[in-house]
Amino acid sequence: MKIYESATAPNARRVRIFLHEKSIENIEYVQMDIQGGENLTKAFKQKNPLAKIPILELDDGTIISESVAICRYFEEKNQETPLLGSGAFEKAIIEQWQRRIELSLLMPTGMCFQHSTGYFKDRMNVVPEWGKECGNNVKKFLAFLDTHLAGSEYIAGDSFSIADITALISIDFNRVNNIKIEDNQENLKRWYAAVSSRPSAKA
Amino acid sequence: MKIYESATAPNARRVRIFLHEKSIENIEYVQMDIQGGENLTKAFKQKNPLAKIPILELDDGTIISESVAICRYFEEKNQETPLLGSGAFEKAIIEQWQRRIELSLLMPTGMCFQHSTGYFKDRMNVVPEWGKECGNNVKKFLAFLDTHLAGSEYIAGDSFSIADITALISIDFNRVNNIKIEDNQENLKRWYAAVSSRPSAKA
Repeated sequence: MKIYESATAPNARRVRIFLHEKSIENIEYVQMDIQGGENLTKAFKQKNPLAKIPILELDDGTIISESVAICRYFEEKNQETPLLGSGAFEKAIIEQWQRRIELSLLMPTGMCFQHSTGYFKDRMNVVPEWGKECGNNVKKFLAFLDTHLAGSEYIAGDSFSIADITALISIDFNRVNNIKIEDNQENLKRWYAAVSSRPSAKA
Repeated sequence: MKIYESATAPNARRVRIFLHEKSIENIEYVQMDIQGGENLTKAFKQKNPLAKIPILELDDGTIISESVAICRYFEEKNQETPLLGSGAFEKAIIEQWQRRIELSLLMPTGMCFQHSTGYFKDRMNVVPEWGKECGNNVKKFLAFLDTHLAGSEYIAGDSFSIADITALISIDFNRVNNIKIEDNQENLKRWYAAVSSRPSAKA
């Protein structure tokens, strides 16, 4: 199996951390030059018509796109150390938190970067006012998350889950937006110290 | 069980269609006045601190927020007529399409509405240029979807899935953005006629 990715892209890091947590190692990683547009070639669009990374190529050539879909594939194949939950209620609560983190933290993080820096201005319209608004929304959500973590060891409860991975990659990527956990966000700092010291965080 | 929702909200309709497809009927629906801010009260924020609908309240008072998390709860409870797939590969492909539809169609649909009309301008900053950009991105994605549906009966393959539900609620909600399926998008028209004539579409 091969994963086409870019080492610095947050969604690609999400898959690497997920696979490290599940001790899945038999993967070849193929690096793509995204800023250079290697994902925009005809050859790559035959693998993923939306031209996004990461993608998983199975040994028979079949492709699975979208980072969370790749995670789900491996979760279903290998149900030890579940990161998407066990049982209907726990799966739902992890999905709830995963979506909150995705929609209110990861998405505005990415849009803040794209619309503030113009990094992909050759392939999208940049709206700087929107980039600024997204940055403010990221800061508001981090304050909410700090409050939430006062009563919860991990984001979705007592166990480490994909929601923690999505929050970690989002917070770390915010270095490009110059947004950091505030000194007085003690709960978020405690959580961040715990998840970022797991061996998987280096993946 | 109770679902707090708003009859016209696309995410609420997604849950109603999902439950109709799975023949789950023992739910009480509680209507909320979202534009009037009924979701912003202290009482509702105790149920969902992010103040969003729909939410599911179980009989013991426990809350599950986020429409897709509610769908997953019922999918895991009732695995007949799966709408999130069976087996690792099918689950991954449905998740892949579900995410493509969510991120490239439903999200820009909602942001186009909010940033073009100022419907929620009492509780968010409106960026009209971003609303316009989102509308253009919706149109581009509908063209992509038309091409995709030339080779696929439903969005994620041969079977109706949550990806079809998410696409249907997105396309129908685009009436507020004055964006419609184009006359020459024959594949999208064929798919839309099929999914919108299912009894669940009236839910």
